[in-house]
Amino acid sequence: MKHNFGAGPCILPQEVFQEASKAVLDFNNTGLSILEISHRSKEFEEVVKETESLVRELLHVPENYSVLFLQGGASQQFAMVPMNLLPDGGKAAYLDTGVWATKAAKEAKNFGEVVTVASSKDSNYTYIPKDFEIPLDAAYFHFTSNNTIYGTEVFATPSTTVPKVVDMSSDILSREINIQEYDLIYAGAQKNMGPAGVTLVIIKNDLLGKTGKTIPSIFNYQEHIKAGSMYNTPPVYSIYVSMLNLRWLKAKGGVKAIEQENIIKARTLYDEIERNPFFKGTAAVEDRSRMNVTFVMDTPELEAEFLALAKERNLIGIKGHRSVGGFRASIYNALTITSINALVDAMKEFEESHK
Amino acid sequence: MKHNFGAGPCILPQEVFQEASKAVLDFNNTGLSILEISHRSKEFEEVVKETESLVRELLHVPENYSVLFLQGGASQQFAMVPMNLLPDGGKAAYLDTGVWATKAAKEAKNFGEVVTVASSKDSNYTYIPKDFEIPLDAAYFHFTSNNTIYGTEVFATPSTTVPKVVDMSSDILSREINIQEYDLIYAGAQKNMGPAGVTLVIIKNDLLGKTGKTIPSIFNYQEHIKAGSMYNTPPVYSIYVSMLNLRWLKAKGGVKAIEQENIIKARTLYDEIERNPFFKGTAAVEDRSRMNVTFVMDTPELEAEFLALAKERNLIGIKGHRSVGGFRASIYNALTITSINALVDAMKEFEESHK
Repeated sequence: MKHNFGAGPCILPQEVFQEASKAVLDFNNTGLSILEISHRSKEFEEVVKETESLVRELLHVPENYSVLFLQGGASQQFAMVPMNLLPDGGKAAYLDTGVWATKAAKEAKNFGEVVTVASSKDSNYTYIPKDFEIPLDAAYFHFTSNNTIYGTEVFATPSTTVPKVVDMSSDILSREINIQEYDLIYAGAQKNMGPAGVTLVIIKNDLLGKTGKTIPSIFNYQEHIKAGSMYNTPPVYSIYVSMLNLRWLKAKGGVKAIEQENIIKARTLYDEIERNPFFKGTAAVEDRSRMNVTFVMDTPELEAEFLALAKERNLIGIKGHRSVGGFRASIYNALTITSINALVDAMKEFEESHK
Repeated sequence: MKHNFGAGPCILPQEVFQEASKAVLDFNNTGLSILEISHRSKEFEEVVKETESLVRELLHVPENYSVLFLQGGASQQFAMVPMNLLPDGGKAAYLDTGVWATKAAKEAKNFGEVVTVASSKDSNYTYIPKDFEIPLDAAYFHFTSNNTIYGTEVFATPSTTVPKVVDMSSDILSREINIQEYDLIYAGAQKNMGPAGVTLVIIKNDLLGKTGKTIPSIFNYQEHIKAGSMYNTPPVYSIYVSMLNLRWLKAKGGVKAIEQENIIKARTLYDEIERNPFFKGTAAVEDRSRMNVTFVMDTPELEAEFLALAKERNLIGIKGHRSVGGFRASIYNALTITSINALVDAMKEFEESHK
């Protein structure tokens, strides 16, 4: 058995792979592959409806919010957000907590003024800035709720009257959130929702249509809302597999239940990092992510040795991002405590053999 | 056996479905699903490389052209083309051969002046206009090579010194083309290239970077070229299945061989439409598409009867688009002559039983 700690695209439940594999040969006893059915068929329309209703149910999305399945990943949202929300001559506020947050702000600069309210860049993004002011005349305030590279997560949403836009690509569906604290949430699917190729967007409807700007149809949220995520051919298979994965999450007891598992998984791993003299965490304790656990060793030589052991033990994808070094264990919803234990065992084994 | 005449997403070869299904459980003996591997893994980088090299080989793409795999479908290209090619205050020329061509022109109007060089709208797009002038000061000339709804196809590329941009979503890889006749080709994959979720773009490199405009990174072709289609997480599975399908096409003898099959398939069906007194084609004979065959009957009552017979005979997806009515048989690369014969047999049977 392989333990896939990859940062995304990442592990999904084996049951989902089984069903997803079958549907490529025969979708719902239609005698057709899911890859060859029309996106306008009754069968696929039901897939989109069920996927939307699972998102609404699992995240308690109120009726005055729309749920969209788009393409282009979070990176496309970096542009679509200001296209839709930033009026000409307007200003947007961004919190800088890492590479992806920086990229989001950079793209917004193509459309208006960007105020960076705070940044933890000086400490290589090891923590989440907490004391900052959001200008009241900003069209929106943008932040990244989980920083995959640095292993930090924003658990307390900053309080402001300015509309809040959040990139939740790597922690959506991993913990309970109050949707009403946000005005626009977006997330590339390829962590906890499904495979690569689809992007979830949840928008408070009354946020839209206020800039007076012309927005190309394909980038206009209102067009996608009107068309029920079928403005043009959607990424059929990515939506279908997301539906299977959301069904799995629901059967597990939903977001509340998975959050409890995620807390235990993260604690088990962080406890070992703290206990084991060979390893140390890189993120500020109060901001430690439950999704991406980043840790290092004292020397590159030891790190190379541990990586070799990890490989032997079938622990996949734990090499850290080059900007942090060391290790990163991504422990998304579908990763089991068995895999966490396998990693912890390898860390203990390493300690024993190097005493 | 079902005969899938759907307009897209559409039939792909059974061998492709078999392999695509297996990879969802175990990709290339990695012990991991294709859906959970990192897009930065060596294994997936090889998939992207092979897919690109198959496109280059099958379409004879010269070295001074880039090959990209993007997201968002042809509809996103409707906006990206003028974003990248139309300078402020510039002008673009569009040929209007149907709904999709009209939509492409409409989106371009967000970025500059659009000149419609000719239109066959007055005749409900039953033919391809041939006598028109392309303004020499246009930044580019855009046309749609195959009109899925109306069953028309442009076999002779208009001659002009203005850069040519073509939407080949529904006939790319179905017939030999000379890439050098075009400056930019785009195509949603979900007809002859692969499943929904990926868009092929082939661009002559020296066409880019000339407008002096700032283009958001995610919509900038040059950014995608620099990143080798990995500017952000690509639609992994859609690219993988496209690779399998391109391998299949290569093994069949490539585009030249499939074109011969497509000619025979189209001729067989058009011959029956002409012979059978119950049916008549809707497109001008000289512009008839080899990919989408559109035909009608004298009365809606008869059409309903034939649709019922088709359903009995497992002929799927032959109802015509509402704007043309009647029937549309989409006969893409993967649809076999066996399926064409099954449709022809049903037409003959209908004739016999109504004599």
